[in-house]
Amino acid sequence: MFKENRTRSFIKMLSWRVWATLTTMILVFIFTGKFLIAVSVGVVEVVAKMLLYYIHERIWDKIRIGRQESKPFVLWFTGLPSSGKSTLADKTYEYLSKKGYKVERLDGDVVRSFFPNTGFSKEERNTHIKRVGFLASLLENNGVSVVSSFVSPYEESREFVRNLCDNFIQVYVSTPLEECERRDVKGLYKKARAGEISNFTGISDPYQAPKDAQIVIDTSKETEEDSFKRIKKYISSYM
Amino acid sequence: MFKENRTRSFIKMLSWRVWATLTTMILVFIFTGKFLIAVSVGVVEVVAKMLLYYIHERIWDKIRIGRQESKPFVLWFTGLPSSGKSTLADKTYEYLSKKGYKVERLDGDVVRSFFPNTGFSKEERNTHIKRVGFLASLLENNGVSVVSSFVSPYEESREFVRNLCDNFIQVYVSTPLEECERRDVKGLYKKARAGEISNFTGISDPYQAPKDAQIVIDTSKETEEDSFKRIKKYISSYM
Repeated sequence: MFKENRTRSFIKMLSWRVWATLTTMILVFIFTGKFLIAVSVGVVEVVAKMLLYYIHERIWDKIRIGRQESKPFVLWFTGLPSSGKSTLADKTYEYLSKKGYKVERLDGDVVRSFFPNTGFSKEERNTHIKRVGFLASLLENNGVSVVSSFVSPYEESREFVRNLCDNFIQVYVSTPLEECERRDVKGLYKKARAGEISNFTGISDPYQAPKDAQIVIDTSKETEEDSFKRIKKYISSYM
Repeated sequence: MFKENRTRSFIKMLSWRVWATLTTMILVFIFTGKFLIAVSVGVVEVVAKMLLYYIHERIWDKIRIGRQESKPFVLWFTGLPSSGKSTLADKTYEYLSKKGYKVERLDGDVVRSFFPNTGFSKEERNTHIKRVGFLASLLENNGVSVVSSFVSPYEESREFVRNLCDNFIQVYVSTPLEECERRDVKGLYKKARAGEISNFTGISDPYQAPKDAQIVIDTSKETEEDSFKRIKKYISSYM
């Protein structure tokens, strides 16, 4: 529940009093033409109204009318390993955090580090993504936006997540396989090619490209700054 | 992000103006002894200050000072099937919701219905509880309290969840097995005795009673109302 503390009420009271009493004094001076009366009314008013204002603020703290939160959303980055999902997701998360938005960052590697036994078969991947989607939707339902980056190669589980969330924005990072493999941020493509790891998306596992993504970003053709600008523009309607 | 809308500022402005202008008029009358001047100052003030007050409110909507949320917590009900966890958890959830708190309800049966393949072996139960705990901690980190009811029979996973959460309150519903079996809300004890379902906590699976629960409730010895009162008292420090 949202509350305003006493310090806020006190500072607001002072801030208001400056402008309000100045106005009163000017008004009284205009109507009476007497400077002394204007000052006298001002002095008494300052004391009486500060008390009144503070009490008024404290009462309004209990009244819910017109208090609202921004519309939360789930911004879901999908794409091949090393396609640039995490970089863009991190940037978006930091942007929203700095603006004071309630936002949670969910990253494939981080979530898997909590649950190291999660496998990479089609079924395990789908179950994993569905669980993460369930989590994201609960956060969204409670006013927290989510910026997530998961390879999430299968349409089935992405659709499951889309249906769970109210405002699901899919960002397909469509950087071509050749470019992703050239980057090979974690050296995993090399291992996959050498047969050291199996079920590696793009090499030994399929990636089903989404057909309904709200934003499509090919990081081999667009600068990070331009991509980020498009993301910012898209989410601005929720802010 | 939290915001106040224009309607709120407008209504607050009217509410304030009634008291403030009455005070001004009384003050002017005391200092000048002239009723007409008091009324004139009042009339002009009403118009000038309403505008000023509204602007002041809109400006303060952008200022974050002193805006705070209540301390979120994770209230975790553990106990045998049919021990009375869900009933108490539902009651607590409704109480918090009605009070306007941000709160999410997580129930074993509901979460499992999303993930029907979750098994009941010791390892599967522990992994399941850890995942739910991870979810609860993310909600808590984002200002949402959680009321959860899970059999959660193993100390290992309960401790994992406790460590993830900032304010973990464990409620051990200690209703004796005989009483739980007598109630048999979902007819599962009967099936477990007949050997129709396996890995059933209390019959064919162990329940490790927590030693460090903040609240212990034996629903065979205490009325629902009395138990609920104790829960309310305990969580009041977080509200």
